[in-house]
Amino acid sequence: MAPNAARRSESSRKAILAATAELCGENGYARLTIEAIAARAGVSKKTIYRWWPSKGAVVLELLDQTATIAIEPPDSGDLATDLRTLLTEVIGMLTPPETSPGIGLIAEALHDPDLARELRERLIRPRIATFKQRLRRAQDAGQLSPDADLDVALDLLYGPLYHRMVFHLGMPDPSYLDSLIAHTLRALTPPRH
Amino acid sequence: MAPNAARRSESSRKAILAATAELCGENGYARLTIEAIAARAGVSKKTIYRWWPSKGAVVLELLDQTATIAIEPPDSGDLATDLRTLLTEVIGMLTPPETSPGIGLIAEALHDPDLARELRERLIRPRIATFKQRLRRAQDAGQLSPDADLDVALDLLYGPLYHRMVFHLGMPDPSYLDSLIAHTLRALTPPRH
Repeated sequence: MAPNAARRSESSRKAILAATAELCGENGYARLTIEAIAARAGVSKKTIYRWWPSKGAVVLELLDQTATIAIEPPDSGDLATDLRTLLTEVIGMLTPPETSPGIGLIAEALHDPDLARELRERLIRPRIATFKQRLRRAQDAGQLSPDADLDVALDLLYGPLYHRMVFHLGMPDPSYLDSLIAHTLRALTPPRH
Repeated sequence: MAPNAARRSESSRKAILAATAELCGENGYARLTIEAIAARAGVSKKTIYRWWPSKGAVVLELLDQTATIAIEPPDSGDLATDLRTLLTEVIGMLTPPETSPGIGLIAEALHDPDLARELRERLIRPRIATFKQRLRRAQDAGQLSPDADLDVALDLLYGPLYHRMVFHLGMPDPSYLDSLIAHTLRALTPPRH
């Protein structure tokens, strides 16, 4: 592609993702349409459909760009601090419930197997790998039991957010989050003698 | 109401719930309609709408009737065994993902605040109370730390099921479920000396 066309493409792509974030924040995922995104971004519907098959796919890419923890896990030296950083970012993506693009995408994927597969393989699996990388480092440093199951660790730490999301019980506040992390670390660390 | 009319009402109610369960199992929640339920149950749509405002409300009542653990928690004497019983029942309600009425209802409630409130207050809160009653008994018997947070316990035990549900990671098999329960109990029990 000629440099100018590539630059135009990239600026359209950014405008589409920005419009998607704005519209979802204003009206919620359920009322988001490709038409509205095209109008807000100043592009044609055809341009959007050239890159994405559905609004779900656009929102998936938006989330992939927004979540900063994809590649390198935080490592402050203190595991509890890093877990708080990771979980707080996810809480942010699930808040507020009425207009969160993340919750909208999750709801749609629950009855769309293709979108579900994309969500899992493209967005979630790489982040699970990042998370386990951080935990493995803690395990190597003796901060977690050598026999702690890191898949269980993932489920124990992230599960509460999704349990609370699906039953509309409210996201953890900072002190509840600290309690969740402290309990989970107790499950994963060797007893002190 | 005359006895005959009451009996007719009750048999219609049962036929409607049975038809809802069958149709959901055959085609999934998304394709369920009040029309189809009425046809299968041999009642009019008007009869259904007299009792329920929407298909979500019918499915909510179906789940409320199906889940046996509403009022009295299991108490075999062994806490891990009882937790396995409770969690296995929930796993059953979330399986198979394509046709589970529970998952269908959860997905719909994620963008319907009224249904979300019904789901939480009618189906979930009473079961949370039942669960905490069982845990409180274990705490009184010294099987859980006096300072274990029972809200956290709820989130740690049930969270993994919903985390795995929303990201299509597959429900826990029995050995993984045992590992989840063992880790969680370690988080909630006093260290052994």
